[in-house]
Amino acid sequence: MGIPVILDCDPGHDDAFNILLAAAHPAIDLLAITTVAGNQTLEKTTLNARRVCTVAGIEGVPIAAGRDRPLHGPVRVAASIHGESGLDGPGFKDPTVPLDPRDALTLIRDTLLAHPRPVTLVPTGPLTNIAALLLAYPDLAGRIERIVLMGGSTGRGNTTPAAEFNIHCDPEAADLVFSSGLPVTMLGLNASHQVLATEDVIARFDALGTPLAGICTQMLGFFADRYREVFGLPGAPLHDPLTVAHLIDPDLITLVPASVAIELTGTHTRGATVVDLHGVTGRAPNAEVATVVDADRFWDLIVDSVRVLGRDTA
Amino acid sequence: MGIPVILDCDPGHDDAFNILLAAAHPAIDLLAITTVAGNQTLEKTTLNARRVCTVAGIEGVPIAAGRDRPLHGPVRVAASIHGESGLDGPGFKDPTVPLDPRDALTLIRDTLLAHPRPVTLVPTGPLTNIAALLLAYPDLAGRIERIVLMGGSTGRGNTTPAAEFNIHCDPEAADLVFSSGLPVTMLGLNASHQVLATEDVIARFDALGTPLAGICTQMLGFFADRYREVFGLPGAPLHDPLTVAHLIDPDLITLVPASVAIELTGTHTRGATVVDLHGVTGRAPNAEVATVVDADRFWDLIVDSVRVLGRDTA
Amino acid sequence: MGIPVILDCDPGHDDAFNILLAAAHPAIDLLAITTVAGNQTLEKTTLNARRVCTVAGIEGVPIAAGRDRPLHGPVRVAASIHGESGLDGPGFKDPTVPLDPRDALTLIRDTLLAHPRPVTLVPTGPLTNIAALLLAYPDLAGRIERIVLMGGSTGRGNTTPAAEFNIHCDPEAADLVFSSGLPVTMLGLNASHQVLATEDVIARFDALGTPLAGICTQMLGFFADRYREVFGLPGAPLHDPLTVAHLIDPDLITLVPASVAIELTGTHTRGATVVDLHGVTGRAPNAEVATVVDADRFWDLIVDSVRVLGRDTA
Amino acid sequence: MGIPVILDCDPGHDDAFNILLAAAHPAIDLLAITTVAGNQTLEKTTLNARRVCTVAGIEGVPIAAGRDRPLHGPVRVAASIHGESGLDGPGFKDPTVPLDPRDALTLIRDTLLAHPRPVTLVPTGPLTNIAALLLAYPDLAGRIERIVLMGGSTGRGNTTPAAEFNIHCDPEAADLVFSSGLPVTMLGLNASHQVLATEDVIARFDALGTPLAGICTQMLGFFADRYREVFGLPGAPLHDPLTVAHLIDPDLITLVPASVAIELTGTHTRGATVVDLHGVTGRAPNAEVATVVDADRFWDLIVDSVRVLGRDTA
Repeated sequence: MGIPVILDCDPGHDDAFNILLAAAHPAIDLLAITTVAGNQTLEKTTLNARRVCTVAGIEGVPIAAGRDRPLHGPVRVAASIHGESGLDGPGFKDPTVPLDPRDALTLIRDTLLAHPRPVTLVPTGPLTNIAALLLAYPDLAGRIERIVLMGGSTGRGNTTPAAEFNIHCDPEAADLVFSSGLPVTMLGLNASHQVLATEDVIARFDALGTPLAGICTQMLGFFADRYREVFGLPGAPLHDPLTVAHLIDPDLITLVPASVAIELTGTHTRGATVVDLHGVTGRAPNAEVATVVDADRFWDLIVDSVRVLGRDTA
Repeated sequence: MGIPVILDCDPGHDDAFNILLAAAHPAIDLLAITTVAGNQTLEKTTLNARRVCTVAGIEGVPIAAGRDRPLHGPVRVAASIHGESGLDGPGFKDPTVPLDPRDALTLIRDTLLAHPRPVTLVPTGPLTNIAALLLAYPDLAGRIERIVLMGGSTGRGNTTPAAEFNIHCDPEAADLVFSSGLPVTMLGLNASHQVLATEDVIARFDALGTPLAGICTQMLGFFADRYREVFGLPGAPLHDPLTVAHLIDPDLITLVPASVAIELTGTHTRGATVVDLHGVTGRAPNAEVATVVDADRFWDLIVDSVRVLGRDTA
Repeated sequence: MGIPVILDCDPGHDDAFNILLAAAHPAIDLLAITTVAGNQTLEKTTLNARRVCTVAGIEGVPIAAGRDRPLHGPVRVAASIHGESGLDGPGFKDPTVPLDPRDALTLIRDTLLAHPRPVTLVPTGPLTNIAALLLAYPDLAGRIERIVLMGGSTGRGNTTPAAEFNIHCDPEAADLVFSSGLPVTMLGLNASHQVLATEDVIARFDALGTPLAGICTQMLGFFADRYREVFGLPGAPLHDPLTVAHLIDPDLITLVPASVAIELTGTHTRGATVVDLHGVTGRAPNAEVATVVDADRFWDLIVDSVRVLGRDTA
Repeated sequence: MGIPVILDCDPGHDDAFNILLAAAHPAIDLLAITTVAGNQTLEKTTLNARRVCTVAGIEGVPIAAGRDRPLHGPVRVAASIHGESGLDGPGFKDPTVPLDPRDALTLIRDTLLAHPRPVTLVPTGPLTNIAALLLAYPDLAGRIERIVLMGGSTGRGNTTPAAEFNIHCDPEAADLVFSSGLPVTMLGLNASHQVLATEDVIARFDALGTPLAGICTQMLGFFADRYREVFGLPGAPLHDPLTVAHLIDPDLITLVPASVAIELTGTHTRGATVVDLHGVTGRAPNAEVATVVDADRFWDLIVDSVRVLGRDTA
C-alpha cells in the first residue's frame, strides 16, 4: 500500500490538482479529505472538494468539513485569485460524492485511530483544522507520521508583500503547527513559483482530450489569467500539488532544515514565515523547507494523474 | 559641474568603494562625507572614512562624524562581516586627511545652505543622521534634491531573515526618511546581490597594479571571504556603490515605484522593508526601488574609479 | 439544586479557598475540578487540587489534569507568590482523593454532555483548558451557561506592570475566550485588591479552631507574607474566590459591561486586558467586568465555608 | 531669581493655568513658551498661548511655534475635551502679545545657550519638540537641568484605556525623552485625577471677581462639562499645572523612582506608559513618578496665581 495520507484543503484550483494527484498515484493511499475556510468560505471549499471528486470519479474517500474561521481574527478569502466559487472557470454539475456527517476533527481522529500506521497530514489551506486537532487531541501526535504543508515563503509573500495566503489567514494556527514538535515540511511560494502553468503547460492538459482534462484546462486557464492580471506572471503557480509530488518522489524538491518562525505581530508583516536559511538567528531548525523544484518532473506527475483519472471516467 | 552629492556612510568595505567612485567620476561633485555608527562604531567608521580618503588621495572634501547610536534602541555593528576595524583586510597608515570639527548635522546643514543647487543625499549606513537632520532642520527639505540610499530588500534580509542591516540598525530613522515626502530611491539587497565581487572581479582590481588597487584587492578579498563563510555566496555583494553608480548612469539599474513600509514592530521582522511591488496593499508609492542591475557596466565603473584614483596617487 | 459549576484552576492559595467555597455552599453544585499549569506546573497544581479536597473532605467530585503549557510560548509559574509547591505554608499529607483518568477536556466534555442544564465554567488560572475546549469542541458552546473567570485588571497588572498573571500566562487563550461570543464575567485585580487577607481577616480563620481552619490560617499567612514582600501590601488579595462568591451572591460585586481586548502583541504590554470602561474605543462590550466588591460580605462567605467544611472533617 | 523654566505646551485649558502659575509665582523664572500640536493643531495652540498671555498681561516672554505633527504617524487632537478652538469656553480678543519669528527649537536652543544656569524644561503636550531638540542638538543636554512633564499614567489612560493623550500622540518622542538619560519627572493621570476642578473649586475662582478670574471660571466650566460627559467625572482634572506646582513646592506631590517604558507597539496599548512601581521587570528607574498629590495646597497655588495676575490686569 502507498503512504497513508489525509488531505486538509480549501479547493481552490491548485488544491483540486492535489486531490487528483493523491487519488491517482499508487504511491499514495488517500484516506480522507477535510476542508477548511481559505480560498473561499468553508461552504464553498467543501462543495468544491465534492465537485472535484465527483468529476474525477474519486469515490470512497470520506470528505468532512472543518473550521469556518481562523483561531483568531476575521475570515479572509482569495476571491481575486480563485473567483466567487473558489473554483471558477469550468462549469460543475451537482456533486454526487457525499459529505461525511462527521466534522473534520472527528474524521481525522477516527482515521488516525483506525489506521495501523502513522498517517501523513497534508494541509494545503490555512492550518486551522490541524492546529485545532493538536489542541483538542494532543495524544494523537503519536499517530501522525509528519506534516507536509503548502504555505509560507522563504522570500516575498503574495497576500501581503511579507505573507503568503495560507499562513496569513491563520498565523496562530501556523505557529502551533510549526512549534508542535512534529516533523514539518514546508513547501512555500519560493518553490511553487518554479512551477508555473504557462500556455505550454496548459496545452499538455488540453491534448489529453478527456472530459476531466477539459475541466483541468479550464481551471488552469482561469487561474493563469488571474495571476497574469494581479502579479504579472506568465502563468499560475500550482502551489498545493508540490506536497503530494514530494511524497511520491522525494528527490523532486530540494529540502533544507531551517528555523521557521511565524510572525504573529508586526504592523506590516503579520503571517510572514521568517525562514532562517543561514543560521543567523541562533534558532534550531523546526522544519524542512523547500528550495529548488524539478519543474519538468513535477508537470509530468500532474499530467499523468489527469490522464489516469480521465481514462477511468471517460 | 557634476551632481552635487553628500555621502553619509559607515565604512565598511563597500562604503569605501562608493567614496572612491564618487570622488573619481566627473559626473559627481562630492561636497562632503559624514559618518554614522553602523558597520562599526562611529569612532571606527569615521577613522575609516579618513583612511580611505588618505590612501586614495581624496583631499578637500570635509569629513564630519555624526550619530553614535540609533534614534531608539541599542547600537549594533557588523563585525562578523567587516571585521573588528570595520575595514579589515589591508593595513592602513594613519590618515592625513583631517576631521572636520563640526558634527555631521552641522556640516550637512552648512553644505546644503551654501550650495546654489539642491543637493543629493546618499546614505549608505543606518539612516540616523538623515532622520535627525530632517527632525532638526525641517526647513532644509527644500535644499535636498533627493535621497538615494542603500538599504532594505524586496525579499530576504541579511542581519535577520527579514531585515537588511542598515534598516535593522535604526528602523525608526528609516521610517522617518521613507515617510518624509522627499524623493527616495532604495537600492537594496535584491539589487546588490546581483553584483558579487567574485574571484574574476577581484582579479580585475589586482591587475591594475597600483598601490590603491592593491588595497582594494585586499579589501575585496577579506569581504568575499566573510560572505563565503556566513552566507555561502561565491563573492561579496558590493552594496553601497549601487547608489553613486545609479547617479552616474541612470540606466544601469531598473527602478520601479512602490510603497515601502518599514516594519517597526514585529517579533521576528523588525526593520524589514515591506515593498509592495504588485500593489496589493493599496498604499501609494513613496520610493523608487531597484530591481535589475547591469552587473557588467557596474563593475566597469568601479574598476575605472580605482584606475583613475590610483593613477593620481601612484 | 445549586448552580452547576466546573472549576478550572491552578491551586494556588486563592484557588484553594475557591474550591472550599464551591464545595461548601448549597447554592453551588460542584460537578468537576480540572487543573492547568499556572501558579505552578500542572503536576503540582493537580496534586494541590487533590490535597485541598482531601483535607477538606470533598469527595465525589472528579478531578482531572489539563494542559501543561500555554497555547503559544513558554510555561511560566508564580513561585515567588505561591512557593515551590504552589501551595506553600501548611504541611499536607498525601491526598486520598483520586485523580480521574480522563484528561481535563474529556472530563469537561463528558460533564457538559451529561448534565441536564447548561453549566457555568469557572476558570481561575490561565485559560488554556477553556480555549482548547472551545477549539476542540465548538458544538459544546450551547452546553455552557456562562464563563465566570478570575483574570485581568481594569488598571495595573501584577506579573508585569501591565498584565495580570492568568492572562499573561496564555494571552491567546484569553483572546479566544473573550472573543468566543459566550457570556464572560471578568473578576480582575482591581476587584481582588479590595479583598485583602490582612491580619484581622486571618484571625477570623484562626478562631474557628478546626484542623481545616488551621491549614487555611497557614495558607493565608504564607500568602500574605509574599504579597507584603513583593508588593508592599498589608495582606494578600484573595483573587479567585471572587468568582464563586459572585455566583452565590450576585449583588456582592458590581459589574459593568465593557469591551475587553487582550493585548497579544506589545513590547511591554503583552497579556494586558484593555478594558474600555468609558466607551472611547468604539468596541462593543464583550464581557461584564467587576468594579466594586463588598469586602465584608465576601469574607463572611469565605469564613463560613471553612467553618462548614471544618465541621464535617473534624 | 526663581527656577529658570521653559514651558513647552499645547493650550488647552489646563496648559493655560500652567502658564498663569509659572508667570505669577516668584519661585519661577519663565524664560520662554513654545507650542506644539496636541490638544489642537499647532496653529490653534500657538494662538491660544498668545491669547492666554494677552488676557493675563504676561509680556516679555517669547512665544514660538514648534512641530505641527508627531515624529511618526498622523496628527491627533483632543477636540472632544478642549473644543474646536482648543480653549473653548470664554471669548478671547485678538492677542496683542507677539509671536517670536524663530521656530520653537531655535528659541529653546538660544534660551538654553544664553542662560547662565541649566534650565528646566516643562513639557505639557506631546513630547515632539523636546525629542526633536534632543535629536537636533544633543550637545545641549548639559544645559538642561531636568525635564518635568505632564503625561502618561501609572494605571489607566484616557485617550485609550491604556494610553494617556500626550504620550499617545507621539510615543516615539516620549521614548526618546524617557530614555535620554536626563532627569525626568512624570506627572500622570493617576496624579492629575486627584485635582478635579469641581463646582466648589470653580466657585473659588469666580469669587475673585477680576476679568481674568471670569475667564478662568469660564474655561473651567467648559472643561468640567466635557469631563462630566465623556468620563462621568465630577470635575475636570487640571493635569498640566502639576508640573509647575511641583517646581514651586517639591513637597506637594509624592514622587517615587521607577522604570517607565513607553509601549511603541501593541495592538491596543500603543502609547501606554508601563510604570514598574514594584520592580517586577528588573529595569532600572529612569524617572521619578508622581503618586500622591496634596489637592488643597495645589488649588491654593492655582487660585493665588489667578488672584495675583488678575490684580495686575484689572
